[in-house]
Amino acid sequence: MSENLDVIFYPRSVALIGASKDVGFYIDPISASRLGEKFFLINPSSSEVLGFKCYSSVLDVPEPVDYAIFAVPAKFVPEILEECGRKSVRVAHIYSSGFGETGLEEGRVLEEEVLRVAKSYGIRVIGPNCMGVYCPESGLFFSHNLPSEAGSVAFVSQSGGQAVNFAFDGVSRGFRFSKVVSYGNALDVDFIELVDYLAEDPKTSIIGAYVEGLRKTDSLLETLKKASERKPLVILKGGQTGDGARAAASHTGVLAGSAKIWEGFLKQVKAVRVETFEEMADVIVGFLYSFPPKGGGVSIVTTSGGSAVIHTDLCVKVGLTVPSFSEGTQRELRRIIPIAGASIRNPLDAWYAFQSGILPEALNIVSRDETIHSLIIEVQPGGFKAYTDRDPSVVDKFTTILGETCKKIMNEHSKPTLIAVTPSIYPEFEAKIKSTFQNMNLPVYQSIYDAAKTLSELHQYQLGRNLR
Amino acid sequence: MSENLDVIFYPRSVALIGASKDVGFYIDPISASRLGEKFFLINPSSSEVLGFKCYSSVLDVPEPVDYAIFAVPAKFVPEILEECGRKSVRVAHIYSSGFGETGLEEGRVLEEEVLRVAKSYGIRVIGPNCMGVYCPESGLFFSHNLPSEAGSVAFVSQSGGQAVNFAFDGVSRGFRFSKVVSYGNALDVDFIELVDYLAEDPKTSIIGAYVEGLRKTDSLLETLKKASERKPLVILKGGQTGDGARAAASHTGVLAGSAKIWEGFLKQVKAVRVETFEEMADVIVGFLYSFPPKGGGVSIVTTSGGSAVIHTDLCVKVGLTVPSFSEGTQRELRRIIPIAGASIRNPLDAWYAFQSGILPEALNIVSRDETIHSLIIEVQPGGFKAYTDRDPSVVDKFTTILGETCKKIMNEHSKPTLIAVTPSIYPEFEAKIKSTFQNMNLPVYQSIYDAAKTLSELHQYQLGRNLR
Repeated sequence: MSENLDVIFYPRSVALIGASKDVGFYIDPISASRLGEKFFLINPSSSEVLGFKCYSSVLDVPEPVDYAIFAVPAKFVPEILEECGRKSVRVAHIYSSGFGETGLEEGRVLEEEVLRVAKSYGIRVIGPNCMGVYCPESGLFFSHNLPSEAGSVAFVSQSGGQAVNFAFDGVSRGFRFSKVVSYGNALDVDFIELVDYLAEDPKTSIIGAYVEGLRKTDSLLETLKKASERKPLVILKGGQTGDGARAAASHTGVLAGSAKIWEGFLKQVKAVRVETFEEMADVIVGFLYSFPPKGGGVSIVTTSGGSAVIHTDLCVKVGLTVPSFSEGTQRELRRIIPIAGASIRNPLDAWYAFQSGILPEALNIVSRDETIHSLIIEVQPGGFKAYTDRDPSVVDKFTTILGETCKKIMNEHSKPTLIAVTPSIYPEFEAKIKSTFQNMNLPVYQSIYDAAKTLSELHQYQLGRNLR
Repeated sequence: MSENLDVIFYPRSVALIGASKDVGFYIDPISASRLGEKFFLINPSSSEVLGFKCYSSVLDVPEPVDYAIFAVPAKFVPEILEECGRKSVRVAHIYSSGFGETGLEEGRVLEEEVLRVAKSYGIRVIGPNCMGVYCPESGLFFSHNLPSEAGSVAFVSQSGGQAVNFAFDGVSRGFRFSKVVSYGNALDVDFIELVDYLAEDPKTSIIGAYVEGLRKTDSLLETLKKASERKPLVILKGGQTGDGARAAASHTGVLAGSAKIWEGFLKQVKAVRVETFEEMADVIVGFLYSFPPKGGGVSIVTTSGGSAVIHTDLCVKVGLTVPSFSEGTQRELRRIIPIAGASIRNPLDAWYAFQSGILPEALNIVSRDETIHSLIIEVQPGGFKAYTDRDPSVVDKFTTILGETCKKIMNEHSKPTLIAVTPSIYPEFEAKIKSTFQNMNLPVYQSIYDAAKTLSELHQYQLGRNLR
């Protein structure tokens, strides 16, 4: 079944039906991609849109068309789908809304009509009421300004807006996508089939999903189980509360299902369940650029004593521990950090170590401590600013050395080492520090708290797998 | 008792003992402030630091000195404090560390000595091991780049790093300070006395506090109660867990006290308790630029259906409700939003309203609904970018009109109206939108979730007050 989905990610040619400048977010990036030569615009009343030639019907396109994007009013979709059938189009992505999600009888009737026509020609339908596919490898885009570089994260979303937002979250969080699919009302291609395909997709190493509800639930359990056995599956379930389920019904016209049932499901299949898209990105960054810790003992490394205290509390609250270093570790640290005021227990007060350049050595000592299974290092851009103002190269040097030390700890000691770059009033400077670490493929977070929540999720995930 | 503290915020003259470029964060900003003419540097081995004249002893200063900042090694403090006593100095802020927080006997002995000398001359001591005071009104600063403009937020912090960080949080979150005090080891001036003073301070409308533990607890309950009756008191307690209490002992040398005792305390005095500095800033923004809602019913206004669903769940989880609009409201909305696909229940799908310019009218209709006690409006900078690229003035116009509508709803309908400007990949553009709203004194948040948590906190706070 899922083999057929190759064509929705790797079409040889694409037509945009209802081309206008309002859907420039398809026209501009697809035209500029490797699909550009095989991308055809259809508009019966214009010969040109945004500088590109238009055909008046898909039937006029002089070459075969694999994939058609529908950006026409809902009521015209069935008739044009007929034309696509005659043209042997294999995939119809219906961007248009005005179907089942309206809650109106006419929307539901239109959906049935679309499904009937699609079935009669063997056309697979994505949507309606969705953004479709972003697959940088093949050249499919659903927004301006998305990277053309591919990565290994797949993201499946019932919401179009969140599909686009999360694609951009990848940019700011330092990861790239194999495939993103916004599948909207899920008239045909649905959550289950997509997850089934992505579980087998060699280009995908981790699957994120935002789901509101399902039309069909056959094989849900087996599919999620299989996917989760092959790669991490991170799920955000929308419509968990009564008010939320009502909102979901307005949004994609599906029943959200009971929160309890989903909770049990996700636990049973050992998926990672998150509550926000920030957490989704945090967990993905954790799996991509780190790995589950072997235990819950974490070392916090920070230049701020207050941050050390607060974040120790927060680490404990999310289920980790911040144990005192062993006496041996403390002895070794005291040798290189001879300052009475600096804590060498845990959290490690890194101010002296940072200033005197011995931070890598201190981190190495900490990483050898057996009570410590992971490290979180806080970098406060505001604190660095004074140093940069004096000598701009200082920070580059520091971030590079720190980044290399973190990689070494992860490689040699198999201990996840996460970096928290905290918000500051210097957004550009902060962005530069972040991207230096991200370009080294390191796990970067916005706070020790976010990093700790991720470590806890990853640890729980690993415990669940060990029980299999 | 608290009257005496005036001098720690409004000294007529300041000496920095141990002036060097390492404490340029005091020298540069205080020199440039209204205290500049009465700011004296002391260093026995240099005649000049950073371009400013140095005296070799505080006794050589030709004028009276009210306030001395100690930036000398701990062991020299008692002797120099004697000199300050002879000079009739009234406040000694001891920036130096190396006292009780080291956990060493010699540190404790030094503290006792400092206290003895201070008492014998009637000198009030701030610290040791702290950043001291930031009071833009009088000209006291503890960092470069802090605003010289004053506001009405006071912040009291046992941690120096967090005092500085939070002062900058004010910059990014759009509020200003009356006073910030980092009081470190609290040898003399302590948390209780500071809160007592700030409760009476006419320049302060809200008090935030970060506290790890107390040396004395006499009058704690009465002081917090009194303060909390006069103005909102927002407290972050560090060292709540066992590991956290141990970290606090390393940090400021105090016993953190049982989490349970503090929890009961804060509940009894009706303080708002927060877990992170982000929450602290969120709540402060809520009190400053909004007010507690009269009930838990919130309307979410967003252009993203997925965001509507997720955030409805999150609002419910934090104790709010997202009720359906009344039939009358729905009828009125349907008249101006004639699009079948747009939800006019709640959350309100604002895409059509935004595009057609009727968003202010739609918000006014919503604000008249009796089931709705507050509104959260999500603004996604990424979604606007395409509009700005075509016409840069569009966004300015939109944010101004939206901002004015929010103010109107708050003034005329007494319903808190919070704006969530979500993160994007356009940091400058995002910052511009944020600051437009902030400059209008509107409550701006990073997500609907953060705004909802704040509304819930404010609602609980008001319920607590009503019970008095």
